[in-house]
Amino acid sequence: MAPPAALPVEARGLTDTSPITLPGPILATSSHTHAVFGVPDVQPHRECCPPLPRGVAAFASSEMFKSPANKAKPKARRWDARLSRESAARKKSSLKGAAAYLKIPGIISLGGGLPSPEYFPFESVSVRVPVAPAFTEDETGHTGATLSTGRYDVRQGASVYDLSIAMNYGQATGAAQLLRFVTEHTEIVHAPRYADWECCLTTGSTSALEMAMRMFLEPGDWILTEEYTFSSALETAGPLGARVCGVGMDGEGLLPKELDRVLSDWDAEKRGRKPVLLYTVPTGQNPTGATQSLARRKAVMEVCERHDLLVIEDDPYFFLQMEEYVSPEERGLGEVNGTTSATTNGTAATNGHRGGQHPATLSPKFKPTSVHAFLSALTPSLLSLDPHGRVLRLDSFSKIIAPGSRTGWITAPAQLIERFVRHSEVSTQNPSGLSQVVLFKLLDEEWGHEGFLQWLMFIRAEYSRRRDVIVAAAERHLPRHLCIWNPVRAGMFFWIRIDWRRHPLAATLGPGGEPRCGPPPSALEIEERIFHTAIANGVLCSRGSWFRAQKGSDSEVFLRLTFAAASEEQIVEGVGRLADAVRREFELD
Amino acid sequence: MAPPAALPVEARGLTDTSPITLPGPILATSSHTHAVFGVPDVQPHRECCPPLPRGVAAFASSEMFKSPANKAKPKARRWDARLSRESAARKKSSLKGAAAYLKIPGIISLGGGLPSPEYFPFESVSVRVPVAPAFTEDETGHTGATLSTGRYDVRQGASVYDLSIAMNYGQATGAAQLLRFVTEHTEIVHAPRYADWECCLTTGSTSALEMAMRMFLEPGDWILTEEYTFSSALETAGPLGARVCGVGMDGEGLLPKELDRVLSDWDAEKRGRKPVLLYTVPTGQNPTGATQSLARRKAVMEVCERHDLLVIEDDPYFFLQMEEYVSPEERGLGEVNGTTSATTNGTAATNGHRGGQHPATLSPKFKPTSVHAFLSALTPSLLSLDPHGRVLRLDSFSKIIAPGSRTGWITAPAQLIERFVRHSEVSTQNPSGLSQVVLFKLLDEEWGHEGFLQWLMFIRAEYSRRRDVIVAAAERHLPRHLCIWNPVRAGMFFWIRIDWRRHPLAATLGPGGEPRCGPPPSALEIEERIFHTAIANGVLCSRGSWFRAQKGSDSEVFLRLTFAAASEEQIVEGVGRLADAVRREFELD
Repeated sequence: MAPPAALPVEARGLTDTSPITLPGPILATSSHTHAVFGVPDVQPHRECCPPLPRGVAAFASSEMFKSPANKAKPKARRWDARLSRESAARKKSSLKGAAAYLKIPGIISLGGGLPSPEYFPFESVSVRVPVAPAFTEDETGHTGATLSTGRYDVRQGASVYDLSIAMNYGQATGAAQLLRFVTEHTEIVHAPRYADWECCLTTGSTSALEMAMRMFLEPGDWILTEEYTFSSALETAGPLGARVCGVGMDGEGLLPKELDRVLSDWDAEKRGRKPVLLYTVPTGQNPTGATQSLARRKAVMEVCERHDLLVIEDDPYFFLQMEEYVSPEERGLGEVNGTTSATTNGTAATNGHRGGQHPATLSPKFKPTSVHAFLSALTPSLLSLDPHGRVLRLDSFSKIIAPGSRTGWITAPAQLIERFVRHSEVSTQNPSGLSQVVLFKLLDEEWGHEGFLQWLMFIRAEYSRRRDVIVAAAERHLPRHLCIWNPVRAGMFFWIRIDWRRHPLAATLGPGGEPRCGPPPSALEIEERIFHTAIANGVLCSRGSWFRAQKGSDSEVFLRLTFAAASEEQIVEGVGRLADAVRREFELD
Repeated sequence: MAPPAALPVEARGLTDTSPITLPGPILATSSHTHAVFGVPDVQPHRECCPPLPRGVAAFASSEMFKSPANKAKPKARRWDARLSRESAARKKSSLKGAAAYLKIPGIISLGGGLPSPEYFPFESVSVRVPVAPAFTEDETGHTGATLSTGRYDVRQGASVYDLSIAMNYGQATGAAQLLRFVTEHTEIVHAPRYADWECCLTTGSTSALEMAMRMFLEPGDWILTEEYTFSSALETAGPLGARVCGVGMDGEGLLPKELDRVLSDWDAEKRGRKPVLLYTVPTGQNPTGATQSLARRKAVMEVCERHDLLVIEDDPYFFLQMEEYVSPEERGLGEVNGTTSATTNGTAATNGHRGGQHPATLSPKFKPTSVHAFLSALTPSLLSLDPHGRVLRLDSFSKIIAPGSRTGWITAPAQLIERFVRHSEVSTQNPSGLSQVVLFKLLDEEWGHEGFLQWLMFIRAEYSRRRDVIVAAAERHLPRHLCIWNPVRAGMFFWIRIDWRRHPLAATLGPGGEPRCGPPPSALEIEERIFHTAIANGVLCSRGSWFRAQKGSDSEVFLRLTFAAASEEQIVEGVGRLADAVRREFELD
């Protein structure tokens, strides 16, 4: 097996092919000064706040839950001129507006058509969940807790949230109970720099992304994205009549100088209105796995500032930031010698083998000593670097709790949240009440912020191990002269470039040295062959072209592999099958 | 108290003020021949079907679950030319398309980024629910059942659905498990007349309505609605750039001859493209409470046929169809004499008093002897009268299970469902997995179709009683020469016209007989006064103008009261407070 010293540091074949300097491990380079509002501040702050609204469809806003420190910050800019006609045209709902009168003591409402909770066929709901920090399935079996919600827990003084509220209609911001937790979490983790930021629950980032796009894009408008981007974002933008302009990337994702070049050279007469919106996945980008370093993020924000872009920060993998991959060989034998090695941020990590079939694939497991150390080590979000409120940040529970919750949240200036809420009122309304009440029970009543962050540390460690498995399998099995990959330091995706020009069909001469007849195949055709040969060999990958911002402009072949879904054994087997397929395609055997 | 013999049979002040003939009680006039596919057919049919798909994000379609009888029917028309640019532009998702390869035995997927279920922090979910037919809260406390779902129930053979599936990503149609139930239910209840109808789960009808509008409307297009309509529908259409054309109604809702007149007289040059879409709430219309009779529905569909309209049938109150209201006086003393009276459809109903404070407000309780009798007595939906697939029917669990489920379904031709699914994939994705699995456990595993229909009978009886309470309170308290109301035979709403021209301020002469200075107040101003006087008197109602399709064109004053939310005592008290407010406004005391 080839020594792993010459790890490829960029995804060649992307626009910028000049060498880049990789920063040290992400967890060691962050210089972000974290929130003055920390986990220990939550409880004292709650005690100073007015009581949590707990009526049916009670109005709530992040303003009720933010720390007083926010008041001293400057306000976000106004974006009135940026709103699409559709978004600007949204009016307040008369019916929802009338809910304000419900605050009058003793008033009887014959107004809103809210069904009576006695007709909800649910007396109680219980979930069995892990107790922090014993998070594994096995541990949950032994030490898990059962969290129950009754129909009238609030009336009975048992909780601040119950089924009579959760199962009825609610406000588009989401229930006050969960909105409070999400607002506090956002302040703890991202500490926005301007005063009037707010959160609003969403029915997942897929839905929130579409709503955010509709907020700014008119038919014919351009939206900027990474050159390879989340295919669903492309499929969302297309039907809105938006055109997608892909911006060059390297191993650290979006290239600020490319972004600047595209915008500075923009020929509005030829192409139409200069883009006003950037869609970016800064952490563990889908599909390339690239993660913007802090320096990169600052440079990106500077260009956005210069060209006055609004930014959709789609960041479901934020908490899945990992240590840099270290190959088993570089690491030595770890547990066998009983050694521990200090990581660069000063916490101790044991090279522990996890038993099972792949002892050689384990990297030093980063075990931050506290949630504070964990948070301090994360490369900060674009939201937290944004003084003017130009970032709409999308968070999602899908990758860190479960996709089936169909719950996430958006953070942005109050002005934009208000528009978002107006849209939610006539579309998604709010996430499922069952999802909200179960998330509230788990996150707020059981785990609290400390427990939730510990859970995120657990999830991150699990995905790190899976990442180690796939990279080690790739190192072991894939033909290195044909397959080049990015270092993966966040998320769920492993992105491989295949040097398709070495494919036998791409050669100008046939196998007998005779000149080929007809045009040589394109990158897309070779990609298709490899994709199908892999399937025939028993492994399904995603084709790079599915993620190409400018459809049909592919000059390189990529495959996206995920290490999120399959078991570790299957990941190793799957990579092996892919390697066989590549060898067969390239006639290596 | 005035004798109730002269019940007003129409909401005067609506466009058509000519007298209308009311049909007999809805439950007696239905001539709809119901489905050949009945509740007893479900189990044998399931046994002939291929096994239910039960993988993560497994593809499913109503086609898998419909009875063979559908195959013999003619296909729906094609609507290609009717699709908006946005809808027509939707492409299949590459990633979702790749899921087809997952059917290959033994294939390992490194394709889709589906998180591994071991990282969902939910070992099991349980709900405590009523067991049919003991549906009340009290009964549930004694005889309720606890339904539990584990993480790996499918693998363990305990169920066909579990948390490892429900909490992961899913198909936009909704999970096969719940889609099957909803498809069967739709066939049992509506028996669509064309072959290629399908269902797709939605995240509630608010969301589905917006998506359906986007499927057909371009900015500037007109949409037809009832003259007074669900305010949220107006607030949805507006920002899309659609213009709303309200069509005259009477006590039975939409007037076919008015619909025909509007369309026949349409001046496309002056107004723009002739409307191609009708939005209607045929049962217990919001806000007027009007219910289209079968004859009315047939006439409406005939006009839609003639002018080739597509129809959005928003029908959340379908199962809340009631007997005609009979005043306590007309009914006699019922239980006191121990008499029973036969209803017109031949089943026996007892005039039973329910104890408590309002024995005089109870109407004969329609107690169908079977779910078959219940279904046969319901006025059929527009969907079931539609031979060509021009109706998109929206069903919702909000009014019959709980709004917090954020789950409903749409039924339409396969062509339109396919477009709807494409849109869902890049927006709502699918309802919450928690909602889906809890609904599945309740509806499919616990109640079955029979139990669900019994539940609907229960809910309907409960709302009938509440309707009786509000109408009796109105008869008792409201000044009859000023307040005119529709008979309410479905839904949740009680619609009152106030004869505002008798308001002292509307008089041309002042209290002393002197001529008034300045212009007389408008209907809207009087409405506002009454609204605020009612609030000052401790009762919140909804203003009719909020529901006016053509904003600002109000020439009458209406109030909408709901009998869904408040307790029966509060309803009576609330109507009394409203009566006092009206008296005060009109200086009656």
